[in-house]
Amino acid sequence: MKKFIFLICCLFLLPHFLTAQTITSPDGNFQMVFRLNEEGTPTYSLTYKGKTVIQESRLGFLIKSGYAFDHNFMITDSQIRESDTIWKPVLGEYREIRDHHNELFIALKQEQTDWLLNLRFRLFNDGLGFRYEFPIQSGLRHFVIEEEETEFRLTGDHLAFWQPADYDTNEYELSTSKLSEVKDLREVVCSEPLAAQSPTERLAVQTPLLMKTKDGLYIHLHEASLVNYAGMHLNLDDSQFILSSHLTPDRNGDRGYIQTNSTSPWRTIIVSDDARDILASTLILNLNEPCKIEDPSWIKPCKYVGVWWEYFTGGPSTWAYTDYQDIRIGETDYSQLKCNGHHGANTQHVKDYIDFAAKHGFDAVLVEGWNEGWEDNWAYHKEVIYSWTRAYPDFDVEELHRYAQSKNVKLIMHHETTSAVTEYERRMHEAFQFMKDNGYDAVKTGYVGPIIPRSEYHDGQWMVNHYNRVAETAAQYQIMVDSHEAVRPTGYSRTYPNWIAQESARGTEFESFRGNHPDHTTILPFTRLKGGPMDYTPGIFEGDLSVYGGKTAKVSTTLAKQLALYVTMYSPLQMAADLKENYEKYPDAFQFIKDVALDWDNSYFLEAEPGDYITIARKAKGKDEWFVGAITDEKARTANIDLSFLPAGKRYVATIYADGRNASWNKNPKSYTIRSRKVTSKTRLQVALAPGGGAAISIRPVK
Amino acid sequence: MKKFIFLICCLFLLPHFLTAQTITSPDGNFQMVFRLNEEGTPTYSLTYKGKTVIQESRLGFLIKSGYAFDHNFMITDSQIRESDTIWKPVLGEYREIRDHHNELFIALKQEQTDWLLNLRFRLFNDGLGFRYEFPIQSGLRHFVIEEEETEFRLTGDHLAFWQPADYDTNEYELSTSKLSEVKDLREVVCSEPLAAQSPTERLAVQTPLLMKTKDGLYIHLHEASLVNYAGMHLNLDDSQFILSSHLTPDRNGDRGYIQTNSTSPWRTIIVSDDARDILASTLILNLNEPCKIEDPSWIKPCKYVGVWWEYFTGGPSTWAYTDYQDIRIGETDYSQLKCNGHHGANTQHVKDYIDFAAKHGFDAVLVEGWNEGWEDNWAYHKEVIYSWTRAYPDFDVEELHRYAQSKNVKLIMHHETTSAVTEYERRMHEAFQFMKDNGYDAVKTGYVGPIIPRSEYHDGQWMVNHYNRVAETAAQYQIMVDSHEAVRPTGYSRTYPNWIAQESARGTEFESFRGNHPDHTTILPFTRLKGGPMDYTPGIFEGDLSVYGGKTAKVSTTLAKQLALYVTMYSPLQMAADLKENYEKYPDAFQFIKDVALDWDNSYFLEAEPGDYITIARKAKGKDEWFVGAITDEKARTANIDLSFLPAGKRYVATIYADGRNASWNKNPKSYTIRSRKVTSKTRLQVALAPGGGAAISIRPVK
Repeated sequence: MKKFIFLICCLFLLPHFLTAQTITSPDGNFQMVFRLNEEGTPTYSLTYKGKTVIQESRLGFLIKSGYAFDHNFMITDSQIRESDTIWKPVLGEYREIRDHHNELFIALKQEQTDWLLNLRFRLFNDGLGFRYEFPIQSGLRHFVIEEEETEFRLTGDHLAFWQPADYDTNEYELSTSKLSEVKDLREVVCSEPLAAQSPTERLAVQTPLLMKTKDGLYIHLHEASLVNYAGMHLNLDDSQFILSSHLTPDRNGDRGYIQTNSTSPWRTIIVSDDARDILASTLILNLNEPCKIEDPSWIKPCKYVGVWWEYFTGGPSTWAYTDYQDIRIGETDYSQLKCNGHHGANTQHVKDYIDFAAKHGFDAVLVEGWNEGWEDNWAYHKEVIYSWTRAYPDFDVEELHRYAQSKNVKLIMHHETTSAVTEYERRMHEAFQFMKDNGYDAVKTGYVGPIIPRSEYHDGQWMVNHYNRVAETAAQYQIMVDSHEAVRPTGYSRTYPNWIAQESARGTEFESFRGNHPDHTTILPFTRLKGGPMDYTPGIFEGDLSVYGGKTAKVSTTLAKQLALYVTMYSPLQMAADLKENYEKYPDAFQFIKDVALDWDNSYFLEAEPGDYITIARKAKGKDEWFVGAITDEKARTANIDLSFLPAGKRYVATIYADGRNASWNKNPKSYTIRSRKVTSKTRLQVALAPGGGAAISIRPVK
Repeated sequence: MKKFIFLICCLFLLPHFLTAQTITSPDGNFQMVFRLNEEGTPTYSLTYKGKTVIQESRLGFLIKSGYAFDHNFMITDSQIRESDTIWKPVLGEYREIRDHHNELFIALKQEQTDWLLNLRFRLFNDGLGFRYEFPIQSGLRHFVIEEEETEFRLTGDHLAFWQPADYDTNEYELSTSKLSEVKDLREVVCSEPLAAQSPTERLAVQTPLLMKTKDGLYIHLHEASLVNYAGMHLNLDDSQFILSSHLTPDRNGDRGYIQTNSTSPWRTIIVSDDARDILASTLILNLNEPCKIEDPSWIKPCKYVGVWWEYFTGGPSTWAYTDYQDIRIGETDYSQLKCNGHHGANTQHVKDYIDFAAKHGFDAVLVEGWNEGWEDNWAYHKEVIYSWTRAYPDFDVEELHRYAQSKNVKLIMHHETTSAVTEYERRMHEAFQFMKDNGYDAVKTGYVGPIIPRSEYHDGQWMVNHYNRVAETAAQYQIMVDSHEAVRPTGYSRTYPNWIAQESARGTEFESFRGNHPDHTTILPFTRLKGGPMDYTPGIFEGDLSVYGGKTAKVSTTLAKQLALYVTMYSPLQMAADLKENYEKYPDAFQFIKDVALDWDNSYFLEAEPGDYITIARKAKGKDEWFVGAITDEKARTANIDLSFLPAGKRYVATIYADGRNASWNKNPKSYTIRSRKVTSKTRLQVALAPGGGAAISIRPVK
């Protein structure tokens, strides 16, 4: 069904004395120059519309122990070709994606060792991707990376939207500052205690990193197709403004076990002078391998509710069934233990959520705290902490399977691991089989706390392989995966679209801890979401947790902004995260969550400035329905929404869910208005967004 | 079927002000004093026949991070009881084993923390065992051991039979020296390169450790029932002659993740003034839990040959099927690759060994190199290196299953892991299922090279749990396990008798590298073998490897001594390790290997001095057959063999396999004589043992 247009425009075999090569993007805006410098070190530089984006920057490796595989190279081959194809994502922001690029391939040989190293550059209209390739060769078979030495030499002290580099977490607050200010600010940011936390000793930031130059260029750095390789951070030289790759090591300091006949991930540089182009870019997806699941028809968008937010509200609900301290999974007989009286995942409570899901047209119900082991937690460093096949006594798996089936609702399995990954890998097959036996076809995985094996970090090569293995193994069982606390995504959901979403950034749960800044969700789509869909779990209507009696936290958005997030935070998996009682109080606002689509024919990035505002419209896949989300940071704003994406000459009804007149995130978050009006492709809507507010619009044909 | 005699002789509840307690062994030879010293630190001391064995020695823990859980204790409870029971091992040196001991239980509370710690001492006629118990308590739930602080304060500079402490290997040469000489000698010993090697920074030796005092006491230190705990080494203070526990850490320095309601392994001190009693001791087995396999009738002794030694001889035979370097398990299609022409584990060659086994009455054939992956090895640090379910193209699993079955011979599976344990654990169930599907009921496992997970050492808690998990999982499949390069055994084969043998010391394979000293096998039964059976793989008839053209190594025993090892090195799993061609050259000597039993009604330790000589006789289980093995070190010796263990008044034929007149391990190893004579229980045989020689005797009723 896929349509491939494959053009090889030119194929050169170049003389060996050649030391530089230039390619341009198909539209001519980008120019990339590859050069071997005087030391025989490979370098590249990049311009956009004549402006320098990346100055001549070095490439290469330090190989364990201490061998410089980064100089004295000669070029042995060089090839340029153009490729222009179209492919269809299984689920996505677009029905079709065009992959049009010019490619430069360079084969290198290091003179003193005869070791071979290849480079492949692909220049698209939205930016550059390049990777290292380790060809099979007699002199180099297996090696350990001490460090990858890829540089990104910037032109100045750009404004950056950043998180501190940390091998174990991507859940810090997002910061906006000049690169020169990162050093002082990151101390403050890193002082927030998180369940697993290993900030880099060296000054460094995470990818995806967005920067904005003084002359208005937006530069996005990340990686694509992270497979059998460590996640990359970026060292920051804040005097010369040089970023350089900083691979996540294991605790022995080793950054990658490599066998030749393999490649690094792609290093990606998305650039535009229009912030909306960063949101629209498909470069990272284009650099991933095509779908490896032969028949992906079982992979479906999923809108869900669940037994989850109640654990964060400060109410009495607990994941744990008992207060007993001597739990040994496989030995403890829970039927002999006393329930603590406020265990969330009990059969009746789950049935109530199934009823609610059925009544309101949700696909599924997530249940956390259903399984044995929640009396302990990650702080105990316990390897055998959960069973993923044995439910608590008050959670009747078979009855809930039957009941959910009778209501045409799916249950979503939860596999918290507390990062006891060795044990999870031992049990994964039986856990997935247990799911299939009981009607589950999606799992939310969790990696709270430090990793076991204790040599490993969340972002290291070993864990990258683990997350990928989970996705691949789950695919064998036709199971969709929604991973939390995993390494940030790099577009691998193109290859394994059953890896339907990830958290991998500060999600809504943090609103119940120390909060997310009102600009948080105006940055994430530019950074974290470029790697893939995020299970942000929006939809909190009751943002004042003091109503539950145990906490004082307040959600940092208006209610209308919570609705808008369903459009601005792309994901084919979306939760309506609040308690069902809160939705029942606001059935008119809830209607938008019930209506909004999760999979799209097209997306229109109407307005965007990172840290300030985003307005996106999307056309539901295969339907004459459009949904718009507009959000702002802590500042009030008017969203100017140009509906010219609508088919000309047709009339539609727009239902506009907007902030109330005096709404604001911190003083009056629950004030909203809902109004309907007729619109056409010529309509320009102006919608007022409150401080920390937003607006959501559904557009349907006039009946 | 087991007969238990269970006596509780006395049960005291003691007043809290009591700070010391004394118990004696049932025969009165041992006295053990427990005392809380002035700092409230628990201590113990031990005497044997009035001589001090262990001076007052401290007990306790350092808890992470830095908390001293070793002082300010008060006694809250104390109990003494006697126990006298008899149990039957599934396989063993004795048909029945008596467990007769006096037990002292002490409950302690640390004053400032209210943390609880219990101690349990058991004093047998062959020595002392004691352990820590961590009772369930509200103030302490999970903790990390920074170090166990058990002391063994010796009375002087004893002669020691030792190996350097090393977290990753127990395959060093055995050394004999005074304790004060260990420091200088261990540098030399540790300079031998081994596949995985992590000698302790601090001066320390391994257990089992045998010592001999100036006044003729033999003291054996080890541990029993190593479960969910790190293997113990012993720090050596060589000025005060204090040994102290040194638990194997992980690479982060953590030495044990403990949840309360658990215990440490037993620390064992076997003592006698007669070396033979050390060999005869069953203390370590007695301190292990009874068999946990409900019906162990499928666990059977096994005498085997195999495709193995040929890989060590220097001949062309290789484990690997190809010379190709780009192997990726699960991706590489071996059927497309060219065989290197000298792959050992090919179907015809294995059939020849099956024929040989059938002809000579062996139970099984071990085949190494049968499976995909041997092109790579541990030095590449590769996690996914082998398949344990896919054979090389020239190894026809189904045909060999059929063929072996038709000859009534079993095949022994081989699972080399190169210590890629994470991958082995992922695959263990399918690997065991594959075995069962193809008629295998025993597996030899291997752990060459550094451990993956890379935080772990061979002897650490995580790996201890792994080895035990393999035994327990294998039991579910009714599979027997013979582990190589695992942590040294601690009697756990009583609990899981399907863990039929281990290597876990320098085995015969080292004879093909740098050799074993002629006294090697006169020490091992005193040290390594006290923990459990050893798969030493004796039976090398052609000890001069230069005959194969690739090596110059020579086996350091006479041929007759190779025969004696089948009796002196107890194991219900015994290999005839040499090539079948070599057995065919010496059919008369080979007859002893064919005849010798593997499981025993009783064992008689006739003569013994560690490092010098051992003579053992054993009665075959359920048969009127006895076998005797006598070995010596590099010195010639006459073995005086008192046959009074034979039933009185009956006449037997003894077949004596002895060294030839001019035999010696280094000049004339293959000279042997075989003679038969009539014997009775009154016979005293004198058999000359050549330098590095030995003798083997089979005794059967006169027909």
